[in-house]
Amino acid sequence: MSRPKPETLAVRTVARSRLFHVQAVSLRFANGVEVDFERLAPGGGSGAVLVVPVRADGFILLIREYAAGTDRYELGLPKGRMEDGEDPLVTAVRELREETGFGARRVEPLRVMSLAPGYSAHQTHIVLARDLYPDPLPGDEPEEIEVVPWPLDDLHGLLAREDFTEARSVAAMYLARDALADDGDRLHE
Amino acid sequence: MSRPKPETLAVRTVARSRLFHVQAVSLRFANGVEVDFERLAPGGGSGAVLVVPVRADGFILLIREYAAGTDRYELGLPKGRMEDGEDPLVTAVRELREETGFGARRVEPLRVMSLAPGYSAHQTHIVLARDLYPDPLPGDEPEEIEVVPWPLDDLHGLLAREDFTEARSVAAMYLARDALADDGDRLHE
Repeated sequence: MSRPKPETLAVRTVARSRLFHVQAVSLRFANGVEVDFERLAPGGGSGAVLVVPVRADGFILLIREYAAGTDRYELGLPKGRMEDGEDPLVTAVRELREETGFGARRVEPLRVMSLAPGYSAHQTHIVLARDLYPDPLPGDEPEEIEVVPWPLDDLHGLLAREDFTEARSVAAMYLARDALADDGDRLHE
Repeated sequence: MSRPKPETLAVRTVARSRLFHVQAVSLRFANGVEVDFERLAPGGGSGAVLVVPVRADGFILLIREYAAGTDRYELGLPKGRMEDGEDPLVTAVRELREETGFGARRVEPLRVMSLAPGYSAHQTHIVLARDLYPDPLPGDEPEEIEVVPWPLDDLHGLLAREDFTEARSVAAMYLARDALADDGDRLHE
């Protein structure tokens, strides 16, 4: 089934802060029904990058940092915003250096994911990083970030932790495991 | 490493619309550094539920609907907001009936996930639904939702689709596959 997209009748700003821009959108669906939605306008650059840094011993470099949204320390993958027009692989290496102190000689895009397509245009590029080496870059974090290496083959143990909750990080760990398994398959063909 | 949480110095509303409430939070970290963050205040009830409806033949009932945030049709799992104080399993069955026309005799919680803990308190309950049977409930959707059954054992094919992008749906499909495999293991013990 392929449907024509709803027609956009009007878009207006209903709230705005330093970081957030809320729009009200009036739409007319193909069946004639008209609806108003609120959404977060695309802003703050072109999106975000989430990095899966794989050490040679099969451990993933997770980070544990304070999250203001949930008001607690959260375990997850290094991430950051892309600057305007920036290549996601460039963002990935910069954020990796700032948050873990490691650079990567080998980075590759795994997939682009959305966060909440119903009300946000936000896109996150998932990047696999390998061949890591010490190469710290000062970041703008309010306190030192804790790096927590975790064995990729203990994904179940990771999912059992109460502080590993972010959907993007959960999805990215599975995607990385699949990608690395595929690589292994190819090596043995 | 266990750190004391940053101290909250002040919280104030900086923008508000019908659905969104943006707060500025001033924090002092344990090392004395003070920082201001913006976040989306918890609101609109206690969270959301995402359902993985598994048919007896191993197909998952996906839905395809228009998403105002990305302005395109997106493939994903049925979901909806919990009403105040509502059990997530109750929300799951209601949303499943409204969006797919099926009820479920067996529902179980898989995991709670966060969306963007850095700036949002939003939590999503992932629920596995089995023993499905026809039991439609009228919803408030602007147009009929397309139901797309997809074989769980073709997760790679699903991930290759350009319209299956939501991180929560990607993570939930993997979690459901693991949970069902564990069930299978137990059956054979």
